[in-house]
Amino acid sequence: MNKEDFIIKAFKNKLNGDDGAVLGKWCFSKDLFVQDVHFKRSWLSLEQIATKAMLVNISDAIIMNAVPKYALLGLSLPNLSKKELKNLQKGFLKTAKKFRIKIIGGDTIQSDKIGISITLISKVKKPVFRTGLKKGHLLAFTGKLGQSLEGLKTLQNGGKLPKNHKFIKPKLQPKFFYEIAPKISCAMDISDGLSKDLSRLLKVNHLGVFMFKKLSKKELYSGEEYEILFGFDKKHKKELKKIAKKHKIKLNIFAKAVKGKYEFKGREHHF
Amino acid sequence: MNKEDFIIKAFKNKLNGDDGAVLGKWCFSKDLFVQDVHFKRSWLSLEQIATKAMLVNISDAIIMNAVPKYALLGLSLPNLSKKELKNLQKGFLKTAKKFRIKIIGGDTIQSDKIGISITLISKVKKPVFRTGLKKGHLLAFTGKLGQSLEGLKTLQNGGKLPKNHKFIKPKLQPKFFYEIAPKISCAMDISDGLSKDLSRLLKVNHLGVFMFKKLSKKELYSGEEYEILFGFDKKHKKELKKIAKKHKIKLNIFAKAVKGKYEFKGREHHF
Repeated sequence: MNKEDFIIKAFKNKLNGDDGAVLGKWCFSKDLFVQDVHFKRSWLSLEQIATKAMLVNISDAIIMNAVPKYALLGLSLPNLSKKELKNLQKGFLKTAKKFRIKIIGGDTIQSDKIGISITLISKVKKPVFRTGLKKGHLLAFTGKLGQSLEGLKTLQNGGKLPKNHKFIKPKLQPKFFYEIAPKISCAMDISDGLSKDLSRLLKVNHLGVFMFKKLSKKELYSGEEYEILFGFDKKHKKELKKIAKKHKIKLNIFAKAVKGKYEFKGREHHF
Repeated sequence: MNKEDFIIKAFKNKLNGDDGAVLGKWCFSKDLFVQDVHFKRSWLSLEQIATKAMLVNISDAIIMNAVPKYALLGLSLPNLSKKELKNLQKGFLKTAKKFRIKIIGGDTIQSDKIGISITLISKVKKPVFRTGLKKGHLLAFTGKLGQSLEGLKTLQNGGKLPKNHKFIKPKLQPKFFYEIAPKISCAMDISDGLSKDLSRLLKVNHLGVFMFKKLSKKELYSGEEYEILFGFDKKHKKELKKIAKKHKIKLNIFAKAVKGKYEFKGREHHF
Protein backbone atom coordinates (compact mmCIF):
# COMPACT_ATOMS: atom_id res chain seq x y z
CA MET A 1 0.00 0.00 0.00
CA ASN A 2 1.54 3.31 -0.94
CA LYS A 3 1.43 6.44 1.17
CA GLU A 4 -1.22 8.23 -0.85
CA ASP A 5 -3.59 5.27 -0.71
CA PHE A 6 -2.95 4.91 3.02
CA ILE A 7 -3.65 8.54 3.76
CA ILE A 8 -6.64 8.79 1.48
CA LYS A 9 -8.13 5.58 2.87
CA ALA A 10 -8.13 7.06 6.36
CA PHE A 11 -10.33 9.92 5.23
CA LYS A 12 -12.45 7.86 2.88
CA ASN A 13 -16.03 8.89 2.42
CA LYS A 14 -18.48 9.18 -0.44
CA LEU A 15 -17.22 12.61 -1.40
CA ASN A 16 -13.53 12.07 -1.93
CA GLY A 17 -12.89 9.34 -4.49
CA ASP A 18 -12.81 11.75 -7.40
CA ASP A 19 -10.64 14.51 -8.80
CA GLY A 20 -12.96 16.96 -7.10
CA ALA A 21 -15.51 16.78 -4.31
CA VAL A 22 -19.05 17.80 -5.24
CA LEU A 23 -21.26 19.59 -2.74
CA GLY A 24 -24.52 20.79 -4.22
CA LYS A 25 -23.76 23.05 -7.18
CA TRP A 26 -20.08 23.37 -6.32
CA CYS A 27 -17.08 21.22 -7.00
CA PHE A 28 -13.94 21.59 -4.89
CA SER A 29 -10.58 20.33 -6.03
CA LYS A 30 -7.08 20.71 -4.71
CA ASP A 31 -3.74 19.69 -6.11
CA LEU A 32 -0.14 20.30 -5.19
CA PHE A 33 2.56 21.26 -7.67
CA VAL A 34 5.96 21.07 -6.07
CA GLN A 35 9.58 21.60 -7.05
CA ASP A 36 11.63 18.39 -7.27
CA VAL A 37 8.44 16.35 -7.19
CA HIS A 38 6.69 17.61 -10.31
CA PHE A 39 9.38 19.78 -11.83
CA LYS A 40 12.98 20.95 -11.57
CA ARG A 41 13.59 24.69 -11.46
CA SER A 42 15.78 24.53 -14.56
CA TRP A 43 13.03 22.96 -16.63
CA LEU A 44 10.38 25.65 -16.36
CA SER A 45 10.38 29.43 -16.09
CA LEU A 46 8.49 30.87 -13.13
CA GLU A 47 5.66 31.89 -15.42
CA GLN A 48 5.52 28.35 -16.79
CA ILE A 49 5.52 26.91 -13.26
CA ALA A 50 2.54 29.04 -12.22
CA THR A 51 0.75 28.31 -15.49
CA LYS A 52 1.19 24.56 -15.21
CA ALA A 53 0.16 24.60 -11.53
CA MET A 54 -3.07 26.31 -12.56
CA LEU A 55 -3.68 24.05 -15.57
CA VAL A 56 -3.26 20.75 -13.74
CA ASN A 57 -5.81 21.97 -11.20
CA ILE A 58 -8.18 23.27 -13.85
CA SER A 59 -7.95 19.86 -15.52
CA ASP A 60 -9.38 18.26 -12.35
CA ALA A 61 -12.36 20.59 -12.47
CA ILE A 62 -13.04 20.15 -16.19
CA ILE A 63 -12.94 16.37 -15.90
CA MET A 64 -15.76 16.54 -13.33
CA ASN A 65 -17.79 18.60 -15.84
CA ALA A 66 -17.32 21.62 -13.59
CA VAL A 67 -16.51 25.17 -14.62
CA PRO A 68 -13.79 26.71 -12.42
CA LYS A 69 -14.81 30.06 -10.93
CA TYR A 70 -12.57 30.83 -7.94
CA ALA A 71 -9.10 29.87 -6.76
CA LEU A 72 -7.24 29.94 -3.46
CA LEU A 73 -3.46 29.86 -3.73
CA GLY A 74 -1.04 28.47 -1.18
CA LEU A 75 2.47 29.50 -2.12
CA SER A 76 5.71 28.26 -0.57
CA LEU A 77 8.40 30.43 -2.09
CA PRO A 78 12.17 30.78 -1.76
CA ASN A 79 13.75 34.21 -1.98
CA LEU A 80 12.73 35.56 -5.36
CA SER A 81 13.51 38.91 -6.88
CA LYS A 82 10.70 41.30 -7.67
CA LYS A 83 11.09 40.42 -11.34
CA GLU A 84 10.84 36.72 -10.59
CA LEU A 85 7.75 37.26 -8.43
CA LYS A 86 6.18 39.22 -11.28
CA ASN A 87 6.84 36.34 -13.66
CA LEU A 88 5.25 33.91 -11.27
CA GLN A 89 2.23 36.20 -10.90
CA LYS A 90 1.96 36.50 -14.65
CA GLY A 91 1.46 32.74 -14.93
CA PHE A 92 -1.31 32.75 -12.34
CA LEU A 93 -3.04 35.85 -13.62
CA LYS A 94 -2.93 35.02 -17.34
CA THR A 95 -4.26 31.53 -16.78
CA ALA A 96 -6.91 32.77 -14.33
CA LYS A 97 -8.00 35.36 -16.88
CA LYS A 98 -8.11 32.86 -19.73
CA PHE A 99 -10.39 30.54 -17.76
CA ARG A 100 -12.28 33.43 -16.09
CA ILE A 101 -11.19 32.39 -12.62
CA LYS A 102 -11.04 34.87 -9.74
CA ILE A 103 -8.25 34.38 -7.23
CA ILE A 104 -9.97 34.99 -3.91
CA GLY A 105 -7.30 34.33 -1.34
CA GLY A 106 -4.53 32.19 -0.05
CA ASP A 107 -1.38 32.14 1.94
CA THR A 108 2.32 32.69 1.24
CA ILE A 109 5.26 31.36 3.20
CA GLN A 110 9.03 31.29 2.93
CA SER A 111 10.49 27.98 1.81
CA ASP A 112 13.65 26.64 0.20
CA LYS A 113 11.63 25.12 -2.65
CA ILE A 114 8.69 26.28 -4.70
CA GLY A 115 5.45 24.60 -3.64
CA ILE A 116 2.10 25.58 -5.06
CA SER A 117 -1.16 24.36 -3.61
CA ILE A 118 -4.28 25.46 -5.45
CA THR A 119 -7.87 24.98 -4.40
CA LEU A 120 -10.39 25.48 -7.15
CA ILE A 121 -14.03 26.22 -6.54
CA SER A 122 -16.06 25.31 -9.60
CA LYS A 123 -19.69 25.40 -10.62
CA VAL A 124 -21.16 22.07 -11.59
CA LYS A 125 -24.63 21.09 -12.74
CA LYS A 126 -24.21 17.47 -13.74
CA PRO A 127 -20.91 16.18 -12.39
CA VAL A 128 -19.09 13.35 -14.13
CA PHE A 129 -17.45 10.99 -11.65
CA ARG A 130 -14.90 8.21 -11.79
CA THR A 131 -17.66 5.80 -10.92
CA GLY A 132 -20.47 5.01 -13.35
CA LEU A 133 -18.70 2.59 -15.66
CA LYS A 134 -20.75 -0.49 -16.51
CA LYS A 135 -19.75 -3.86 -17.92
CA GLY A 136 -19.70 -3.58 -21.69
CA HIS A 137 -18.97 0.15 -21.76
CA LEU A 138 -16.22 1.24 -24.09
CA LEU A 139 -13.10 3.02 -22.84
CA ALA A 140 -11.37 5.82 -24.69
CA PHE A 141 -8.59 8.32 -24.24
CA THR A 142 -7.96 11.52 -26.13
CA GLY A 143 -4.88 12.64 -28.01
CA LYS A 144 -1.56 10.95 -28.42
CA LEU A 145 -0.01 9.60 -25.24
CA GLY A 146 3.73 9.57 -24.73
CA GLN A 147 4.74 13.14 -25.52
CA SER A 148 4.91 14.14 -21.90
CA LEU A 149 7.27 11.28 -21.02
CA GLU A 150 9.39 12.10 -24.07
CA GLY A 151 9.56 15.72 -22.95
CA LEU A 152 10.50 14.69 -19.43
CA LYS A 153 13.34 12.53 -20.77
CA THR A 154 14.61 15.36 -22.93
CA LEU A 155 14.69 17.65 -19.88
CA GLN A 156 16.32 15.00 -17.70
CA ASN A 157 19.04 14.65 -20.33
CA GLY A 158 19.68 18.39 -20.22
CA GLY A 159 17.73 19.20 -23.37
CA LYS A 160 15.21 21.97 -23.97
CA LEU A 161 11.56 21.83 -24.95
CA PRO A 162 9.55 24.27 -27.04
CA LYS A 163 7.24 26.58 -25.05
CA ASN A 164 4.10 24.88 -26.27
CA HIS A 165 5.27 21.34 -25.46
CA LYS A 166 2.66 19.34 -23.56
CA PHE A 167 5.03 18.79 -20.62
CA ILE A 168 5.48 22.55 -20.25
CA LYS A 169 1.89 23.51 -20.86
CA PRO A 170 -0.79 20.83 -20.73
CA LYS A 171 -3.42 21.21 -23.43
CA LEU A 172 -6.84 21.17 -21.84
CA GLN A 173 -10.01 20.66 -23.85
CA PRO A 174 -12.85 22.14 -21.80
CA LYS A 175 -15.20 22.74 -24.73
CA PHE A 176 -14.79 19.20 -26.00
CA PHE A 177 -15.29 17.73 -22.53
CA TYR A 178 -18.37 19.77 -21.68
CA GLU A 179 -19.89 18.63 -24.96
CA ILE A 180 -19.22 14.91 -24.45
CA ALA A 181 -20.10 14.98 -20.72
CA PRO A 182 -23.81 14.10 -21.14
CA LYS A 183 -22.87 11.04 -23.23
CA ILE A 184 -20.22 9.47 -21.00
CA SER A 185 -20.43 7.29 -17.91
CA CYS A 186 -17.19 8.20 -16.10
CA ALA A 187 -14.00 10.14 -16.61
CA MET A 188 -10.66 11.16 -15.14
CA ASP A 189 -7.62 12.92 -16.45
CA ILE A 190 -4.42 11.05 -17.21
CA SER A 191 -1.95 12.46 -14.73
CA ASP A 192 -0.02 9.39 -13.57
CA GLY A 193 0.01 7.44 -16.83
CA LEU A 194 -2.82 5.57 -18.57
CA SER A 195 -1.97 2.27 -16.90
CA LYS A 196 -2.03 3.65 -13.36
CA ASP A 197 -5.06 5.86 -13.94
CA LEU A 198 -6.96 3.10 -15.76
CA SER A 199 -6.26 0.77 -12.82
CA ARG A 200 -7.81 3.38 -10.48
CA LEU A 201 -10.84 3.85 -12.72
CA LEU A 202 -11.46 0.11 -12.97
CA LYS A 203 -10.90 -0.46 -9.26
CA VAL A 204 -13.56 2.02 -8.16
CA ASN A 205 -15.95 0.48 -10.65
CA HIS A 206 -15.05 -3.14 -9.70
CA LEU A 207 -14.38 -4.03 -13.30
CA GLY A 208 -11.65 -5.43 -15.50
CA VAL A 209 -10.68 -4.57 -19.03
CA PHE A 210 -10.41 -6.15 -22.44
CA MET A 211 -7.88 -4.29 -24.58
CA PHE A 212 -8.60 -4.03 -28.30
CA LYS A 213 -4.90 -3.65 -29.07
CA LYS A 214 -1.58 -3.75 -27.31
CA LEU A 215 -0.60 -0.30 -26.13
CA SER A 216 3.01 0.78 -26.15
CA LYS A 217 4.98 1.42 -22.97
CA LYS A 218 5.01 5.09 -23.84
CA GLU A 219 1.23 5.13 -24.06
CA LEU A 220 0.83 3.19 -20.82
CA TYR A 221 3.34 4.94 -18.60
CA SER A 222 3.56 8.57 -19.72
CA GLY A 223 2.31 10.71 -16.82
CA GLU A 224 1.15 14.33 -16.76
CA GLU A 225 -0.53 13.95 -20.13
CA TYR A 226 -3.75 15.61 -18.95
CA GLU A 227 -5.55 13.81 -21.72
CA ILE A 228 -8.99 12.47 -20.89
CA LEU A 229 -9.78 8.86 -20.02
CA PHE A 230 -13.47 8.07 -20.13
CA GLY A 231 -16.06 5.34 -20.46
CA PHE A 232 -19.31 5.32 -22.40
CA ASP A 233 -22.15 3.16 -23.60
CA LYS A 234 -21.49 2.03 -27.16
CA LYS A 235 -24.77 3.56 -28.33
CA HIS A 236 -23.05 6.97 -28.04
CA LYS A 237 -19.99 5.92 -30.05
CA LYS A 238 -21.00 7.59 -33.29
CA GLU A 239 -21.91 10.87 -31.67
CA LEU A 240 -18.78 10.98 -29.53
CA LYS A 241 -16.68 10.42 -32.64
CA LYS A 242 -18.50 13.28 -34.32
CA ILE A 243 -17.87 15.65 -31.39
CA ALA A 244 -14.20 14.66 -31.31
CA LYS A 245 -13.90 15.34 -35.02
CA LYS A 246 -15.55 18.73 -34.63
CA HIS A 247 -12.98 19.68 -31.96
CA LYS A 248 -10.12 18.11 -33.94
CA ILE A 249 -9.41 15.67 -31.13
CA LYS A 250 -8.01 12.20 -31.69
CA LEU A 251 -10.28 9.67 -30.01
CA ASN A 252 -8.72 6.32 -29.11
CA ILE A 253 -11.35 3.73 -28.26
CA PHE A 254 -8.93 1.20 -26.88
CA ALA A 255 -10.80 -1.17 -24.58
CA LYS A 256 -14.03 -2.50 -23.15
CA ALA A 257 -14.95 -2.85 -19.49
CA VAL A 258 -15.43 -6.51 -18.54
CA LYS A 259 -15.83 -8.55 -15.38
CA GLY A 260 -12.57 -8.97 -13.53
CA LYS A 261 -9.62 -7.01 -12.24
CA TYR A 262 -6.83 -4.96 -13.77
CA GLU A 263 -3.54 -4.83 -11.95
CA PHE A 264 -1.22 -1.88 -12.30
CA LYS A 265 2.33 -2.80 -13.18
CA GLY A 266 4.81 -0.02 -13.61
CA ARG A 267 6.47 2.99 -12.12
CA GLU A 268 4.57 5.07 -9.56
CA HIS A 269 6.33 8.39 -9.42
CA HIS A 270 6.38 11.53 -11.48
CA PHE A 271 10.13 11.30 -12.04
CA MET B 1 7.23 45.71 0.83
CA ASN B 2 7.40 42.12 1.97
CA LYS B 3 6.77 39.14 -0.25
CA GLU B 4 3.34 38.30 1.10
CA ASP B 5 2.10 41.85 0.57
CA PHE B 6 3.54 41.86 -2.92
CA ILE B 7 1.92 38.59 -3.90
CA ILE B 8 -1.40 39.37 -2.28
CA LYS B 9 -1.51 42.80 -3.85
CA ALA B 10 -1.25 41.28 -7.30
CA PHE B 11 -4.41 39.30 -6.75
CA LYS B 12 -6.22 42.00 -4.84
CA ASN B 13 -9.97 42.12 -5.12
CA LYS B 14 -12.91 42.67 -2.84
CA LEU B 15 -12.99 39.05 -1.75
CA ASN B 16 -9.51 38.45 -0.46
CA GLY B 17 -8.59 40.91 2.26
CA ASP B 18 -9.84 38.70 5.07
CA ASP B 19 -8.95 35.45 6.78
CA GLY B 20 -11.52 33.79 4.57
CA ALA B 21 -13.28 34.65 1.32
CA VAL B 22 -17.06 34.81 1.46
CA LEU B 23 -19.15 33.70 -1.50
CA GLY B 24 -22.85 33.61 -0.74
CA LYS B 25 -23.45 31.32 2.23
CA TRP B 26 -19.94 29.86 2.11
CA CYS B 27 -16.63 30.99 3.46
CA PHE B 28 -13.38 29.63 2.04
CA SER B 29 -10.11 29.80 3.88
CA LYS B 30 -6.71 28.32 3.31
CA ASP B 31 -3.59 28.32 5.40
CA LEU B 32 -0.24 26.61 5.20
CA PHE B 33 1.47 24.94 8.14
CA VAL B 34 5.01 24.03 7.28
CA GLN B 35 8.02 22.45 8.97
CA ASP B 36 10.88 24.89 9.71
CA VAL B 37 8.53 27.81 9.06
CA HIS B 38 5.88 27.22 11.70
CA PHE B 39 7.43 24.38 13.68
CA LYS B 40 10.45 22.14 14.10
CA ARG B 41 9.88 18.41 13.99
CA SER B 42 11.35 17.97 17.48
CA TRP B 43 8.85 20.39 19.00
CA LEU B 44 5.61 18.64 18.11
CA SER B 45 4.52 15.03 17.71
CA LEU B 46 2.92 14.15 14.38
CA GLU B 47 -0.50 14.12 16.00
CA GLN B 48 0.19 17.58 17.43
CA ILE B 49 1.35 18.83 14.02
CA ALA B 50 -1.86 17.69 12.33
CA THR B 51 -3.97 19.03 15.19
CA LYS B 52 -2.35 22.46 15.13
CA ALA B 53 -2.57 22.62 11.32
CA MET B 54 -6.30 22.03 11.61
CA LEU B 55 -6.80 24.44 14.50
CA VAL B 56 -5.02 27.40 12.91
CA ASN B 57 -7.24 26.95 9.86
CA ILE B 58 -10.40 26.52 11.92
CA SER B 59 -9.46 29.75 13.71
CA ASP B 60 -9.65 31.61 10.38
CA ALA B 61 -13.19 30.31 9.81
CA ILE B 62 -14.44 31.05 13.33
CA ILE B 63 -13.12 34.61 13.18
CA MET B 64 -15.27 35.23 10.10
CA ASN B 65 -18.30 33.97 12.07
CA ALA B 66 -18.33 30.90 9.86
CA VAL B 67 -18.86 27.29 10.91
CA PRO B 68 -16.36 24.93 9.26
CA LYS B 69 -18.04 22.02 7.47
CA TYR B 70 -15.58 20.51 4.99
CA ALA B 71 -11.82 20.31 4.57
CA LEU B 72 -9.45 19.57 1.72
CA LEU B 73 -5.95 18.48 2.75
CA GLY B 74 -2.74 19.00 0.82
CA LEU B 75 0.01 16.97 2.43
CA SER B 76 3.71 17.10 1.60
CA LEU B 77 5.23 14.27 3.58
CA PRO B 78 8.70 12.77 4.01
CA ASN B 79 9.08 9.01 4.45
CA LEU B 80 7.02 8.15 7.51
CA SER B 81 6.40 4.75 9.03
CA LYS B 82 2.88 3.36 9.15
CA LYS B 83 2.76 4.20 12.85
CA GLU B 84 3.82 7.79 12.17
CA LEU B 85 1.23 8.14 9.42
CA LYS B 86 -1.42 6.86 11.83
CA ASN B 87 -0.41 9.47 14.39
CA LEU B 88 -0.67 12.20 11.79
CA GLN B 89 -4.09 10.94 10.73
CA LYS B 90 -5.20 10.86 14.34
CA GLY B 91 -4.57 14.58 14.65
CA PHE B 92 -6.60 15.35 11.53
CA LEU B 93 -9.43 12.98 12.32
CA LYS B 94 -9.84 13.82 16.01
CA THR B 95 -9.89 17.55 15.31
CA ALA B 96 -12.22 17.12 12.34
CA LYS B 97 -14.56 15.05 14.52
CA LYS B 98 -14.46 17.55 17.37
CA PHE B 99 -15.47 20.39 15.04
CA ARG B 100 -17.78 18.18 12.92
CA ILE B 101 -15.74 18.74 9.79
CA LYS B 102 -15.77 16.24 6.94
CA ILE B 103 -12.52 15.77 5.06
CA ILE B 104 -13.62 15.60 1.44
CA GLY B 105 -10.41 15.34 -0.50
CA GLY B 106 -6.92 16.48 -1.10
CA ASP B 107 -3.56 15.50 -2.42
CA THR B 108 -0.44 13.86 -0.99
CA ILE B 109 3.11 14.16 -2.25
CA GLN B 110 6.58 13.08 -1.22
CA SER B 111 8.72 15.82 0.28
CA ASP B 112 11.74 16.17 2.55
CA LYS B 113 9.76 18.33 4.96
CA ILE B 114 6.24 18.20 6.33
CA GLY B 115 3.97 20.75 4.69
CA ILE B 116 0.25 20.89 5.36
CA SER B 117 -2.11 23.00 3.31
CA ILE B 118 -5.71 22.97 4.43
CA THR B 119 -8.70 24.49 2.69
CA LEU B 120 -11.76 24.89 4.83
CA ILE B 121 -15.24 25.29 3.47
CA SER B 122 -17.47 26.86 6.08
CA LYS B 123 -21.08 27.92 6.33
CA VAL B 124 -21.63 31.57 7.09
CA LYS B 125 -24.79 33.61 7.53
CA LYS B 126 -23.49 36.95 8.73
CA PRO B 127 -19.77 37.13 8.14
CA VAL B 128 -17.54 39.31 10.29
CA PHE B 129 -14.80 40.99 8.29
CA ARG B 130 -11.59 42.85 9.05
CA THR B 131 -13.26 45.96 7.73
CA GLY B 132 -16.12 47.64 9.56
CA LEU B 133 -14.21 49.48 12.28
CA LYS B 134 -15.35 53.08 12.79
CA LYS B 135 -13.68 56.01 14.50
CA GLY B 136 -14.48 55.83 18.20
CA HIS B 137 -14.96 52.06 18.26
CA LEU B 138 -13.22 50.25 21.09
CA LEU B 139 -10.62 47.56 20.43
CA ALA B 140 -10.24 44.43 22.49
CA PHE B 141 -8.33 41.18 22.53
CA THR B 142 -9.12 37.99 24.40
CA GLY B 143 -6.98 36.03 26.84
CA LYS B 144 -3.45 36.62 27.98
CA LEU B 145 -0.95 37.36 25.23
CA GLY B 146 2.64 36.21 25.51
CA GLN B 147 2.33 32.55 26.36
CA SER B 148 2.91 31.43 22.80
CA LEU B 149 6.16 33.41 22.54
CA GLU B 150 7.28 32.05 25.93
CA GLY B 151 6.54 28.53 24.75
CA LEU B 152 8.45 29.12 21.52
CA LYS B 153 11.48 30.34 23.48
CA THR B 154 11.35 27.32 25.76
CA LEU B 155 11.35 25.04 22.71
CA GLN B 156 14.11 27.00 21.00
CA ASN B 157 16.22 26.55 24.14
CA GLY B 158 15.68 22.80 24.03
CA GLY B 159 12.99 22.73 26.69
CA LYS B 160 9.68 20.88 26.66
CA LEU B 161 6.11 22.16 26.88
CA PRO B 162 3.07 20.52 28.43
CA LYS B 163 0.63 18.97 25.91
CA ASN B 164 -2.02 21.57 26.53
CA HIS B 165 0.31 24.58 26.11
CA LYS B 166 -1.11 27.23 23.80
CA PHE B 167 1.86 26.93 21.42
CA ILE B 168 1.21 23.19 21.03
CA LYS B 169 -2.54 23.40 20.85
CA PRO B 170 -4.20 26.79 20.26
CA LYS B 171 -7.30 27.29 22.35
CA LEU B 172 -10.14 28.34 20.10
CA GLN B 173 -13.33 29.86 21.43
CA PRO B 174 -16.01 29.27 18.78
CA LYS B 175 -18.99 29.51 21.15
CA PHE B 176 -17.79 32.79 22.60
CA PHE B 177 -17.09 34.22 19.15
CA TYR B 178 -20.40 33.19 17.61
CA GLU B 179 -22.15 34.88 20.56
CA ILE B 180 -20.28 38.17 20.32
CA ALA B 181 -20.34 38.26 16.50
CA PRO B 182 -23.62 40.26 16.19
CA LYS B 183 -22.23 42.94 18.53
CA ILE B 184 -18.83 43.56 16.94
CA SER B 185 -17.71 45.60 13.94
CA CYS B 186 -14.61 43.70 12.81
CA ALA B 187 -12.35 40.87 13.88
CA MET B 188 -9.24 38.85 13.09
CA ASP B 189 -7.25 36.26 14.95
CA ILE B 190 -3.85 37.08 16.41
CA SER B 191 -1.47 34.91 14.44
CA ASP B 192 1.49 37.20 13.82
CA GLY B 193 1.46 39.17 17.09
CA LEU B 194 -0.95 41.86 18.28
CA SER B 195 1.19 44.70 16.93
CA LYS B 196 1.43 43.28 13.40
CA ASP B 197 -2.18 42.13 13.26
CA LEU B 198 -3.47 45.39 14.75
CA SER B 199 -1.52 47.31 12.10
CA ARG B 200 -3.26 45.23 9.41
CA LEU B 201 -6.68 45.79 10.96
CA LEU B 202 -6.16 49.54 11.21
CA LYS B 203 -4.71 49.78 7.72
CA VAL B 204 -7.71 48.21 6.00
CA ASN B 205 -9.98 50.50 8.02
CA HIS B 206 -7.85 53.63 7.38
CA LEU B 207 -7.68 54.38 11.08
CA GLY B 208 -5.17 54.94 13.84
CA VAL B 209 -5.28 53.94 17.47
CA PHE B 210 -5.23 55.46 20.93
CA MET B 211 -3.88 52.96 23.47
CA PHE B 212 -5.39 53.04 26.97
CA LYS B 213 -2.24 51.57 28.47
CA LYS B 214 1.24 50.59 27.42
CA LEU B 215 1.33 46.98 26.32
CA SER B 216 4.36 44.84 27.05
CA LYS B 217 6.66 43.53 24.32
CA LYS B 218 5.39 40.06 25.04
CA GLU B 219 1.82 41.19 24.48
CA LEU B 220 2.71 43.06 21.31
CA TYR B 221 4.96 40.56 19.58
CA SER B 222 3.82 37.08 20.59
CA GLY B 223 2.59 35.34 17.42
CA GLU B 224 0.42 32.25 17.00
CA GLU B 225 -1.72 33.24 19.94
CA TYR B 226 -4.98 32.60 18.08
CA GLU B 227 -6.67 34.94 20.51
CA ILE B 228 -9.29 37.24 19.03
CA LEU B 229 -8.74 40.89 18.15
CA PHE B 230 -11.95 42.79 17.52
CA GLY B 231 -13.57 46.19 17.41
CA PHE B 232 -17.00 47.28 18.65
CA ASP B 233 -19.23 50.23 19.32
CA LYS B 234 -19.01 51.22 22.97
CA LYS B 235 -22.76 50.78 23.41
CA HIS B 236 -22.14 47.01 23.35
CA LYS B 237 -19.39 47.12 25.98
CA LYS B 238 -21.50 45.95 28.89
CA GLU B 239 -23.03 43.05 27.00
CA LEU B 240 -19.71 41.93 25.54
CA LYS B 241 -18.21 41.89 29.03
CA LYS B 242 -21.13 39.78 30.19
CA ILE B 243 -20.68 37.26 27.37
CA ALA B 244 -16.94 37.07 28.08
CA LYS B 245 -17.63 36.44 31.75
CA LYS B 246 -20.11 33.71 30.90
CA HIS B 247 -17.47 31.95 28.78
CA LYS B 248 -14.74 32.62 31.37
CA ILE B 249 -12.76 34.62 28.84
CA LYS B 250 -10.51 37.50 29.79
CA LEU B 251 -11.51 40.58 27.80
CA ASN B 252 -8.85 43.26 27.34
CA ILE B 253 -10.33 46.50 26.07
CA PHE B 254 -7.02 48.14 25.30
CA ALA B 255 -7.56 50.89 22.77
CA LYS B 256 -9.85 53.11 20.75
CA ALA B 257 -9.86 53.63 17.00
CA VAL B 258 -8.97 57.21 16.10
CA LYS B 259 -8.09 59.18 13.00
CA GLY B 260 -4.55 58.53 11.87
CA LYS B 261 -2.15 55.75 11.13
CA TYR B 262 -0.53 52.99 13.13
CA GLU B 263 2.89 51.81 12.05
CA PHE B 264 4.06 48.30 12.73
CA LYS B 265 7.45 48.11 14.39
CA GLY B 266 8.83 44.71 15.23
CA ARG B 267 9.73 41.29 13.99
CA GLU B 268 7.89 39.82 11.03
CA HIS B 269 8.53 36.12 11.11
CA HIS B 270 7.16 33.17 13.00
CA PHE B 271 10.60 32.26 14.35
